[in-house]
Amino acid sequence: MKILVVNGPNLNLLGEREPNIYGNETLGSINAEITAEAEKTGCSVEFFQSNSEGAIIDKLHEARLTSDGVILNAGAYTHYSYAIRDAIAAIKIPVIEVHLSNIDGRDEFRKISVIAPVCRGRIMGFGKYGYILALKSLGMLLGDKN
Amino acid sequence: MKILVVNGPNLNLLGEREPNIYGNETLGSINAEITAEAEKTGCSVEFFQSNSEGAIIDKLHEARLTSDGVILNAGAYTHYSYAIRDAIAAIKIPVIEVHLSNIDGRDEFRKISVIAPVCRGRIMGFGKYGYILALKSLGMLLGDKN
Amino acid sequence: MKILVVNGPNLNLLGEREPNIYGNETLGSINAEITAEAEKTGCSVEFFQSNSEGAIIDKLHEARLTSDGVILNAGAYTHYSYAIRDAIAAIKIPVIEVHLSNIDGRDEFRKISVIAPVCRGRIMGFGKYGYILALKSLGMLLGDKN
Amino acid sequence: MKILVVNGPNLNLLGEREPNIYGNETLGSINAEITAEAEKTGCSVEFFQSNSEGAIIDKLHEARLTSDGVILNAGAYTHYSYAIRDAIAAIKIPVIEVHLSNIDGRDEFRKISVIAPVCRGRIMGFGKYGYILALKSLGMLLGDKN
Amino acid sequence: MKILVVNGPNLNLLGEREPNIYGNETLGSINAEITAEAEKTGCSVEFFQSNSEGAIIDKLHEARLTSDGVILNAGAYTHYSYAIRDAIAAIKIPVIEVHLSNIDGRDEFRKISVIAPVCRGRIMGFGKYGYILALKSLGMLLGDKN
Amino acid sequence: MKILVVNGPNLNLLGEREPNIYGNETLGSINAEITAEAEKTGCSVEFFQSNSEGAIIDKLHEARLTSDGVILNAGAYTHYSYAIRDAIAAIKIPVIEVHLSNIDGRDEFRKISVIAPVCRGRIMGFGKYGYILALKSLGMLLGDKN
Amino acid sequence: MKILVVNGPNLNLLGEREPNIYGNETLGSINAEITAEAEKTGCSVEFFQSNSEGAIIDKLHEARLTSDGVILNAGAYTHYSYAIRDAIAAIKIPVIEVHLSNIDGRDEFRKISVIAPVCRGRIMGFGKYGYILALKSLGMLLGDKN
Amino acid sequence: MKILVVNGPNLNLLGEREPNIYGNETLGSINAEITAEAEKTGCSVEFFQSNSEGAIIDKLHEARLTSDGVILNAGAYTHYSYAIRDAIAAIKIPVIEVHLSNIDGRDEFRKISVIAPVCRGRIMGFGKYGYILALKSLGMLLGDKN
Amino acid sequence: MKILVVNGPNLNLLGEREPNIYGNETLGSINAEITAEAEKTGCSVEFFQSNSEGAIIDKLHEARLTSDGVILNAGAYTHYSYAIRDAIAAIKIPVIEVHLSNIDGRDEFRKISVIAPVCRGRIMGFGKYGYILALKSLGMLLGDKN
Amino acid sequence: MKILVVNGPNLNLLGEREPNIYGNETLGSINAEITAEAEKTGCSVEFFQSNSEGAIIDKLHEARLTSDGVILNAGAYTHYSYAIRDAIAAIKIPVIEVHLSNIDGRDEFRKISVIAPVCRGRIMGFGKYGYILALKSLGMLLGDKN
Amino acid sequence: MKILVVNGPNLNLLGEREPNIYGNETLGSINAEITAEAEKTGCSVEFFQSNSEGAIIDKLHEARLTSDGVILNAGAYTHYSYAIRDAIAAIKIPVIEVHLSNIDGRDEFRKISVIAPVCRGRIMGFGKYGYILALKSLGMLLGDKN
Amino acid sequence: MKILVVNGPNLNLLGEREPNIYGNETLGSINAEITAEAEKTGCSVEFFQSNSEGAIIDKLHEARLTSDGVILNAGAYTHYSYAIRDAIAAIKIPVIEVHLSNIDGRDEFRKISVIAPVCRGRIMGFGKYGYILALKSLGMLLGDKN
Repeated sequence: MKILVVNGPNLNLLGEREPNIYGNETLGSINAEITAEAEKTGCSVEFFQSNSEGAIIDKLHEARLTSDGVILNAGAYTHYSYAIRDAIAAIKIPVIEVHLSNIDGRDEFRKISVIAPVCRGRIMGFGKYGYILALKSLGMLLGDKN
Repeated sequence: MKILVVNGPNLNLLGEREPNIYGNETLGSINAEITAEAEKTGCSVEFFQSNSEGAIIDKLHEARLTSDGVILNAGAYTHYSYAIRDAIAAIKIPVIEVHLSNIDGRDEFRKISVIAPVCRGRIMGFGKYGYILALKSLGMLLGDKN
Repeated sequence: MKILVVNGPNLNLLGEREPNIYGNETLGSINAEITAEAEKTGCSVEFFQSNSEGAIIDKLHEARLTSDGVILNAGAYTHYSYAIRDAIAAIKIPVIEVHLSNIDGRDEFRKISVIAPVCRGRIMGFGKYGYILALKSLGMLLGDKN
Repeated sequence: MKILVVNGPNLNLLGEREPNIYGNETLGSINAEITAEAEKTGCSVEFFQSNSEGAIIDKLHEARLTSDGVILNAGAYTHYSYAIRDAIAAIKIPVIEVHLSNIDGRDEFRKISVIAPVCRGRIMGFGKYGYILALKSLGMLLGDKN
Repeated sequence: MKILVVNGPNLNLLGEREPNIYGNETLGSINAEITAEAEKTGCSVEFFQSNSEGAIIDKLHEARLTSDGVILNAGAYTHYSYAIRDAIAAIKIPVIEVHLSNIDGRDEFRKISVIAPVCRGRIMGFGKYGYILALKSLGMLLGDKN
Repeated sequence: MKILVVNGPNLNLLGEREPNIYGNETLGSINAEITAEAEKTGCSVEFFQSNSEGAIIDKLHEARLTSDGVILNAGAYTHYSYAIRDAIAAIKIPVIEVHLSNIDGRDEFRKISVIAPVCRGRIMGFGKYGYILALKSLGMLLGDKN
Repeated sequence: MKILVVNGPNLNLLGEREPNIYGNETLGSINAEITAEAEKTGCSVEFFQSNSEGAIIDKLHEARLTSDGVILNAGAYTHYSYAIRDAIAAIKIPVIEVHLSNIDGRDEFRKISVIAPVCRGRIMGFGKYGYILALKSLGMLLGDKN
Repeated sequence: MKILVVNGPNLNLLGEREPNIYGNETLGSINAEITAEAEKTGCSVEFFQSNSEGAIIDKLHEARLTSDGVILNAGAYTHYSYAIRDAIAAIKIPVIEVHLSNIDGRDEFRKISVIAPVCRGRIMGFGKYGYILALKSLGMLLGDKN
Repeated sequence: MKILVVNGPNLNLLGEREPNIYGNETLGSINAEITAEAEKTGCSVEFFQSNSEGAIIDKLHEARLTSDGVILNAGAYTHYSYAIRDAIAAIKIPVIEVHLSNIDGRDEFRKISVIAPVCRGRIMGFGKYGYILALKSLGMLLGDKN
Repeated sequence: MKILVVNGPNLNLLGEREPNIYGNETLGSINAEITAEAEKTGCSVEFFQSNSEGAIIDKLHEARLTSDGVILNAGAYTHYSYAIRDAIAAIKIPVIEVHLSNIDGRDEFRKISVIAPVCRGRIMGFGKYGYILALKSLGMLLGDKN
Repeated sequence: MKILVVNGPNLNLLGEREPNIYGNETLGSINAEITAEAEKTGCSVEFFQSNSEGAIIDKLHEARLTSDGVILNAGAYTHYSYAIRDAIAAIKIPVIEVHLSNIDGRDEFRKISVIAPVCRGRIMGFGKYGYILALKSLGMLLGDKN
Repeated sequence: MKILVVNGPNLNLLGEREPNIYGNETLGSINAEITAEAEKTGCSVEFFQSNSEGAIIDKLHEARLTSDGVILNAGAYTHYSYAIRDAIAAIKIPVIEVHLSNIDGRDEFRKISVIAPVCRGRIMGFGKYGYILALKSLGMLLGDKN
C-alpha cells in the first residue's frame, strides 16, 4: 500500500505556530512517527507540504497514478478551495480529510469544509494521532485489495 | 481502560435500514467486532443503544463515574440535541463522535453537528471501522494515564 | 389491511387544549370515529399516543413488522425531530402525515416539516376528518396488494 | 354540491410530462375518475385548466358565485403567485390545495407554497388519488350545509 | 393632462373582498370619484383593470404613446412582477404606485415592492383617497409642461 | 385642523445637502409653501426640526394633546428608530410618513422603514410636493370630524 | 398556592457541572432554599427533574390539575423543544421561565428560547436566586385569587 | 443600598399608552410602589426617565459613582442601542434589565435585546411587578456586601 | 432543422427601451438577421414574442411537436417563473437561454435564473449576437440528427 | 488647517472603561498628545465629546463652516447611526473614521460600520496613535490646499 | 485576431475526470478543434492551462499586451476567486466566460460566478462546443476593429 | 526597524488599472516614496509583490525571522484567503492591513476582510498615503523596542 500525506498552508510552521492549538511537535517529527507506524505493516508513505493551492492540486493529480490513498490536511484551504474539492473528486483513490484540532469548536468559518462531501472519511481533533488513525483507516478500507 | 459505546436513534435497525448507506451488518455484529478488537488491549467495552434522548443523557451522566471514555454515534440527535451537547460538556471524560456515513456529503441538515464543538474528536465516513478507529483513538489519548 | 395511528405530543389533551384551533372533540372520540370508518372496509386500526420522541420511534420500528401503513400526527415533533424522520425512512411501509390544523397558516416555525420529505403523503387542515382521509388514502394506495 | 377543479400550468401535459414523477395518466382520464366518484354522491364537478395566472384568477372569482368549493392544483404558481393567493382569500368558498407529488421531497423552491396559508386544507403526494380525497374532504366539510 | 389608472389582480372585487382591509366601495364607485376630481382641472382619465400580468404590461406599453402619467395599483403583482417593473422602466412617463392599505403593516411578503425602485413616487395607506392624491401628485409633477 | 410637521436629522441642511437628491430649496422655503397651502383651508401648521431622536419623541408626545395630525419626515431615523415607532403607536392621532426622495430606489438600508407599520399612510418620491400631499391627505382623512 | 418546580436536562448535575457557570450548589440544596422560602407564605412546592422531554411534557400536563403555577428551567430544551412549548400553551396555569445563567450572554444558540412566547414571565441570570424570584412573582401574579 | 431606576423612551406615557399591553397605571404610581417596597429594607431609590439615548447614557455613567445597582427598562432602545450596551459594560455596578411585557411574545424585532449580554440579569413579562422583583434581586445579589 | 425563437416581456420595445443597455436595434431587425443566418444552413426559424407568461408556456408546449429546438429570452420571467421552468422541463427538445445583456453584472435580482437549471445551455452578454450564437449552438448540438 | 476631533458615546470614560481593550489613558491626556502633535505643523484642533447622537450631528453640521477636516470616533453609533452617516455625507469636508481597538476582531456587531462608506478614510486598531495618524492623514490629503 | 484560451484547475484531466459530466475528450483534442476552427478565419490561438490561481492572473496580465480577447474557463476558481475577477477588470480586452457543463444545474456553490459581472459574455452548457462559440463571439464582437 | 511591504494580486498593474479608483502612480513610484520616508528614520524597507496566494504566505513566514513588522495590501485575497489569515496569526510580528481605496464604500464583497481580525491595525482609503501612514504606525507601535 502506497500512501501520500499532503499538508497544506501554514502546517510547515507546526511546533512554532499557536502551540496551544496545534501542539509542540514539528511536522518533521510527526512525519517520522507516521513513517514508523507505516513500516509496521509494510506500507510506504510519501510526504508533501505546500502553501500553494495550485501545487496541492498538481500533487493530488499525480497521486492518482502513484498512490493507493491520500491523507489530506488542507489547512485553511479546507474552508474555501472548491478547486481542491474538484481535484479530489477527479482522482479515484480514497482521500481521508484530517485536522489536528477540532475545527468545529473554533471560529465559525472553520465549521465549513468544502472538501468534506468528496472525501471518503474525516478525522479531526486528535492532534498528531489523527494522521496515524487515517493511516489505519486506509489500511482497513483498502485491506482487501492490497 | 473502560469504554462506553453509545448508539442513538434508529441504529438498532442497522443491517436492515437503508443498507446502501449504512451497510448490511447488524449492530450486534459490529459490537462483536469492537469487543474482539478491545480484548486485544485488555480494554473493556459496554454497549448501549436507545431511541430516547433522555435515556442517552442519563447514560452519559452515569458514564462519568464508570468509564474512561465514550464512543458516541448520536444518530439524528447529532443535528439538534443541545441537551446531549450539554451532557457531553457536563461530564469530564472524552467523548468521540462517530458516524457510519460521511454526513457532510448527504442532506443539508446532516452537515450540522451541534455536539461537535464539545466532543474531543470526530470520525466519520468509515462505516463500521469508525468504531474501531474511535477505540484506537481513545487508547492513544488515554494511553499515558491508564 | 392493518393500520397504526400514531399521535404525538400534547394530542392527548385534545378537546381541552386551545379548542379554537384543535376543536372540542377528545382523542378518544376521534379514534372511535376512525374505528367506525375502518370497520366499513374490514380494516383494523391500532392507536398509539405518546409525548416521548423515543417512544414514537420505538412504535414506528415495531410497526414495520405489524402494520401495512401508518397515519402519523407527530405534533410539534414534526418541526424538528430528524430522529422520527430517520425512523420513517428506515421502515418500508407508507407513512401518511396528518395535522388537524392548517399548519402553514399559523406560526412561522410550524411551516417547516422535517418529516415531510420521507412521508408518502400529507393531509392537513381538515380537523378530525384528516384521519379519515388518511385512512382512505391508505386504502387507495395499498388497494392492489391487500 | 357543486365543485370546481382547477389545474394550473403544465398539468395539461400530464401523462406525457416526466411520468416518473407525475404518472402515466392524462388529465382527461383523471378527470373522468373524479367525475365518476362525484356522481356517487350526486355532486357535480366542473373542470378548468389554464397555463395563465390571470385566467386562473378570473375563474376563481367566477367560482365564488357558482361553486360550493374548489379543488386547486396551482402547479408552479403555488410557489410564487401571491395574486392567486389573494384571489383565494377574496372568495369565501373553501379551496383545497392538491399536488400530485410530495412537493416537500423535491426541489427546494417547491417546499414553499404561498397559497397554503389561505387554503382550507392541503393534500399532497397521492398522485391522482389526491383529487378524489379532496372531493371527499369537501363532502365532509360541507356536509352539514348541503 | 391624460392619465391612465391601472388596477391589478383582485381589485375588481373591491367592496366585496375583505372589506375590513379594502373598504366597502366598489372599484366603479372609486373610479367615479377620480373622474369627478379630474374634471375639476380638465384632466382626462382612462381606467383599466386586469388580473393578467401580461395584459397590464401591454397596457403600460400602450400608455407610453397615449398618456402623460400612470397611476398604478399593481395588487399582488407588486411583490414579484419584475416583468411589470421592466415595463415601467421601459416607458418614459411617470408612474405613481398606489396601495389602498398600508402594505408595510400587513403580511411580511407585502413589505417588498419590486416595482418601487422604478416608480416616480409611492402613496399608500389612504384607501380610495390614495388615487386622488396620486392624481394631484401628477398634476404637481407635470404642471409646468401641461 | 391643527397639523404638526416634524423633520428629522439633516433636513435642516436642505438646499445645501446633496441637491441632486434633495433639491435646491431650503426647509424654510418649503415650510412657507406648506403654510400657504394650509391657509387656503384654514388649517394651522406648526413646524419642528431636530437632529435628536429624543427631542422628536418628546415633540410627538406633546402633539397628542395639541394637534389633529402629524406629517413626519424622520430622515435616517426612519430606518432604525424603534423608539420613534413606539411614540407614533403611543399617540392616537394619525401620522403621515413623508420622504422627499423615493427611498426604495436608493441604498439597501433605506428600503426598510421601521416606522411604516404604525403610520397611517406613506408618501414618498415627490420632493417638496410630498408635504403638500400629506397635508391634503390629512384633510381627507380628518375631513368629517373637523 | 401550590407550585411545581420543573428542572430539565443536566440540571441534576448542578454543583458538579461547569461550576464557573452554574455555581457550586447542588439541585437538592437549592430546592431546600426554595422550600424554606415557600413556607414563609404557606405555599407548597413540588419538585421534578428529568432529562426526558416526554417526561417533562407529561408532568406539565399533570400540573394543570394539581398546581397553581409552574417554575420551569427547561435547560437545553429551551432552545428547540416546540413540544414543551405546546404543552405550556395547552395548560392554562402560568409558567415562569427561569435560567441560572444569563443565556443571552453565552453561545449563540442559547439566545433563542422557543418557549418564551408562551411563558407568562422570564427571569434569568440570577443563579439560584432566580427560583426564589420566580416564586415571589407567582405570589404577586396569583395573589388576588389565592 | 442605593438603587437607580431608569426608564427609557415612551415609558412616561404609561397608563395612557396601549393599556392592553402596558397596563393602566402611570409611571408615577409604579414608582411610588417601588419606593414603598424599598423603604421596607432601608434601600433608597432614585428615579430617572428620558426619551433621549444620550441622556440615558449620561445617567448610567453618573450612577457608577452614586449607586449600588441599576434597574433599567430601556424601552425600544433595548433593541438597537449598542451605545447603551457599551455604557452598561463600562460601569461596574450590576444592571438588571426589566420589561413590563413579555417582549419575546410580541413583534419579531422585540425579541432581540442588544443590551442583554452585558446585563447581570433579566426580568420580563410581570408588568409593574418586574420592578419590584428587580429590586429584590439586587438585594439578593448585593446582600453580602451591603 | 426547425427552430423556435421566443422573446418574453418588454422585448417588443427593443430599440426604444433603455438603449444604453439593450441597444438600438428593434426586435424586427434582429429577427431579420437571425433569419438570414438560418437560411445559410437551410434552417427554418419561427418567431414568437409575448408579454404573457401563460402564452409563452402555451407556445413552448406547442413547440414540442413542431420544433427541433428553442431559443428563449424569457426577459424578466427568467427570474421568477417556475411555471416556464416546468414547461421547459416538460418538453423534450433542447432550450437555449439567451440574454442580450450580461445579467450577472446588473441588479441583484437579475443574477438568479430559475429556468437555467433545466435549459440545455446559456448564452448572455453578446447583445443581438447572442441569438446567432444560440442558433449555431443548436446546429452543433443537433447536427448528427438533422 | 483647522481640525475637529469628535468622540462619541462612552469615550468620556476612557482610562476607566475596560482598560484591557481601551487602554489606561484618559481622553484628556490623549487630546493633549493630539494638540502637541498638531502644534508641530501649525494646525489647530478643536475637541468635542458627546454621548448624544443628535449633538454629534449638530457638531458635524457646524464643522462644515468652521473646519477643514474631521477626525471621528463615533463609538457604538458607528454600528447603527444612519443619521450620523447622512450628516457626514451632507457636509463636504473629509471625515476620517478612527477606532482605538481593532473592531473587526471583537463582537460580531462591531464588524459593521454604517458610516464607513461615506468617510474618506478609516484607521483602527492603533489605540491613541490612531488619532495622531488621522491628523497626519488629513495633513497629507489637504496638504495642497493649506 | 489573436485569442488566448485559458483553462483553470483540473481541466488538464479532461477526458478522464467524471466523463459523464465533462465528456470523453481530452483538453488536447478540444484545443485541436479550436485551432482548426480558428484557422478558418485566420485567427491565431494560444492555449494556457494551470491549476494555480496566481499563474492564471499572471497570464491574464500578459494577455493585455499580446491578445485581442480571452476565452476563460476558470474551473472552480469561478466560484470564489475575486483576484481573478480583479485581473479581468484590470485588463481592457474582452474576456468570455465558458463552462463545459451547465453549472446552474449542479451543486449550489457552482451557481455563483464571482467573475461573471466583469466578463463581457458568458457561454455554458455546450461541452466542447462552448469554446467554438466563444471564438465566434469574439469574432463578432471584435469584427469591426480587426 | 526592518519593515516588509507586501502587495498582493493585481497591484503590479497600479497606474494602469482602473486609475479612477487606484490612482495614476505605479507601484514602483509608490515604493520609492515609501523608501524615502523610511530613510528619514533610519528604517529599512523590503518590497514584495505577487499574484500568488502561496507565495505571499511563504513570504510572510520568512518575514517572521527577518522583519519587525509587515505592511500588507492583500488585494482581493483580503476577502477570502483564510490561508493568509492563518499565516498572519502564525507569525508573531505585527501586520498592518492597508488598502488604497475605501473598500467599505465599493462592492458588497469588498466589505468583508477575513484577515482583519488577526491584523494589528487597519488603514484604508488614503491612496498611496496609506503605506506612509502604516510605516508611521509601525514606528509608533514598535518605538519602545527599537
